[in-house]
Amino acid sequence: MSARILIVDDLFPNVKLLETKLSLEYFDVLAAMNGPDAISICEKGLCDLVLLDVMMPGMDGFEICRRLKSSPTTAHLPVVMVTALDQPADRLRGLDAGADDFLTKPIDDTALFARVRNLVRLKAVTDELRQRALASREFGMGDPLALATAEDGQNASILLVEDRASSAERLSAALSQHHRVTVVADPHDALVLAIEGDFELALVSLDLQGFDGLRLCSQILSLDRIRNMPVMMIAEENERARVIRGLEFGVHDYLLRPVDRNELVARVRTQLRRSRFSETLRGAVQASMEMAVTDGLTGLHNRRYLDSHLAVLFADAAPRHRAVSMLMLDIDRFKTINDTYGHDAGDEVLRSFANRIRLHTREIDIVARYGGEEVVIILPDAEPEAAHHIAERIRERIEAVPFLIQRETRDIHVTVSIGVACRHADDSGPADMLKRADLALYRAKSSGRNRVEAEAA
Amino acid sequence: MSARILIVDDLFPNVKLLETKLSLEYFDVLAAMNGPDAISICEKGLCDLVLLDVMMPGMDGFEICRRLKSSPTTAHLPVVMVTALDQPADRLRGLDAGADDFLTKPIDDTALFARVRNLVRLKAVTDELRQRALASREFGMGDPLALATAEDGQNASILLVEDRASSAERLSAALSQHHRVTVVADPHDALVLAIEGDFELALVSLDLQGFDGLRLCSQILSLDRIRNMPVMMIAEENERARVIRGLEFGVHDYLLRPVDRNELVARVRTQLRRSRFSETLRGAVQASMEMAVTDGLTGLHNRRYLDSHLAVLFADAAPRHRAVSMLMLDIDRFKTINDTYGHDAGDEVLRSFANRIRLHTREIDIVARYGGEEVVIILPDAEPEAAHHIAERIRERIEAVPFLIQRETRDIHVTVSIGVACRHADDSGPADMLKRADLALYRAKSSGRNRVEAEAA
Repeated sequence: MSARILIVDDLFPNVKLLETKLSLEYFDVLAAMNGPDAISICEKGLCDLVLLDVMMPGMDGFEICRRLKSSPTTAHLPVVMVTALDQPADRLRGLDAGADDFLTKPIDDTALFARVRNLVRLKAVTDELRQRALASREFGMGDPLALATAEDGQNASILLVEDRASSAERLSAALSQHHRVTVVADPHDALVLAIEGDFELALVSLDLQGFDGLRLCSQILSLDRIRNMPVMMIAEENERARVIRGLEFGVHDYLLRPVDRNELVARVRTQLRRSRFSETLRGAVQASMEMAVTDGLTGLHNRRYLDSHLAVLFADAAPRHRAVSMLMLDIDRFKTINDTYGHDAGDEVLRSFANRIRLHTREIDIVARYGGEEVVIILPDAEPEAAHHIAERIRERIEAVPFLIQRETRDIHVTVSIGVACRHADDSGPADMLKRADLALYRAKSSGRNRVEAEAA
Repeated sequence: MSARILIVDDLFPNVKLLETKLSLEYFDVLAAMNGPDAISICEKGLCDLVLLDVMMPGMDGFEICRRLKSSPTTAHLPVVMVTALDQPADRLRGLDAGADDFLTKPIDDTALFARVRNLVRLKAVTDELRQRALASREFGMGDPLALATAEDGQNASILLVEDRASSAERLSAALSQHHRVTVVADPHDALVLAIEGDFELALVSLDLQGFDGLRLCSQILSLDRIRNMPVMMIAEENERARVIRGLEFGVHDYLLRPVDRNELVARVRTQLRRSRFSETLRGAVQASMEMAVTDGLTGLHNRRYLDSHLAVLFADAAPRHRAVSMLMLDIDRFKTINDTYGHDAGDEVLRSFANRIRLHTREIDIVARYGGEEVVIILPDAEPEAAHHIAERIRERIEAVPFLIQRETRDIHVTVSIGVACRHADDSGPADMLKRADLALYRAKSSGRNRVEAEAA
């Protein structure tokens, strides 16, 4: 993928060198010579990945990385630290600051490009999601980005595929402080477990006996259900070519043996944070779409949902001569409840009313709040007699037990009137049935309330 | 990206050969020996890309491709036709059937893999969007996939970057039958145009004088605003290596010179259909999120939006000592309108009422339907006097002109009562202000209606 790479380094020749290399690979390159400039470019959304030097006057690379990774605006940007520091402690400091990788100079170009491409591709996949989630924030659905950024990357269920007992034990021990680890030696078992289990991350040894660990990685990454699960490789130092191969087809990260426990913990945490970040955004988008068809007060479906599904149901039912029945419910003297006990009490009654209805309807029925104190229930495949029977049961259940409100300090006797109607073969659409149900409800009201009335024969 | 590739060929040795090659590249491979099996695998969502042979007994490759591309369930799957047929007419038939590419045997492996990777990566980016759009369909928001599949890929605004006049003329003439073409010779001008113009697709010659056309492609593909725009390359036969380079970093398709006009038209159409498909899905997700905060009847914001934004507004205003005012409006004797003229008339009045309010509020005001015939208006930065003034103007504008309903056959005289309240420094939250507005509204009602009352001093 083509992408905009931000190089952050206070030394001009370093910038120039990286710029030339990346430019030859058809990346678009920007540069910043200090931390504040770098952060500003990232905040403006002008780059897709940051190559970050550590040693700079003023704000150092660790601090820049920490700031980028802790802000909802920039946390999604991959950061690769590139530095001459080569102590494990430096590396760890970088990873702890949230860096996606830490490469030591002199840089192996192949490794660098493979890593950059790998991170840029992963980012492209979640960018779309981020855009949608940003919209959900504008619509006032809370801030999924802030929530996602706060993720700590702990307490995951991890699948470790390793057939060397000693290594499995060491890796498992390091991870078990923060996570639950399942070790499996056989790659075929591993694939089954990955599909059927509920793992959040897989760690795969590339030197399994008689099996290509890379194959297992690619299989996991191709599976629809677990495609978003991060996969990490564990490889021998001399297997860099295979590691790069893995990065090319989408493996998320790797560790070289002997595996440093702290580095393992840090890299696993980074992967979990990233994937949970996406999961949070996905959930936010989903939730805000669900809200569009849900009544905020009662949690029932709303009229928009009712109208759309009723139209589909009618279109389906007509050619197959299938029954569709409808109940229109209206709480009796609801205005008196509001006027006597206040609107909050009225809301409480509505919520309890909705819950009680849910208890007496099936999964396939559509229960929707139709207006203030009106609820419509659609009963697919229900003949008139059955619909009438269900209506009578609901009426009876509402009347039978008073509604507890105001923290159960008060109970209100509530009754409901119900009009029942069914689809007719000559109906031109759902509106005809709705009208008949409305008329039946009117008769139920005018003949004394707390009654079920069917449409006129 | 790792992915599941479906090979469709009736000859077992052909399947085996491709399977071995792809497997070595760490793709997961499935096979189907006939059309119905292939379609069934695709419909079940078991693959990410289809490699399709043309000549098969029963359903041939063209027909399979057409079916896949015309079904909302499978239209998003990239299809590459791989065949021994080498007549331009065959190629064209494949592209016309909707194939994303048509490769002739013997296949150049590098070209095949580059194309497969390219298509798989592009698919990964839209898969997330498709998942969200599928959810919007389940929620009863119409069927964005069906809509997207029906897209014809015509009438686009196309940017052609070509500095050879004769070629520009020929290409432009071929495309102008279906599209609007803008030709630009200078690559720098082209980039500016791409950013500032409103193009749906860019065609870039790779052999511009003194400029690397691939660079321009990568620049266009890196730009945030136009990232989703398809980019196609036009290259000399001997520049295949550069073409593959382009495919690797995300260029969408290419044509080799001499460009066959029909092939050009077909490939452009395929790219436009694909990008408009994504755009439609994006729009569906966005629309369904917007619905979550919109009142279906009036198009005003709903209470969910009001509550969430009011909370944010309050939190912002308090430390800065900024004013926040609120109007609570209630149509007078609305029940009488419903009872006299029917619910439809009541709905019409509500819609007109909402429209008239919109005319008298600012962009930054929040106007939300609060309940049946109640509307709340939040006026950020408005002092009590200003709020009262606005309320009075709205009251006056509602009373002044009767509401035309029932196709303008009837006019109803409508009035509104309004309660005004403002944020107090010691408010614990928006609920306090809402309560005062409600009380003021109650006084407006009880002292004769068609009045504005401010909260008690």
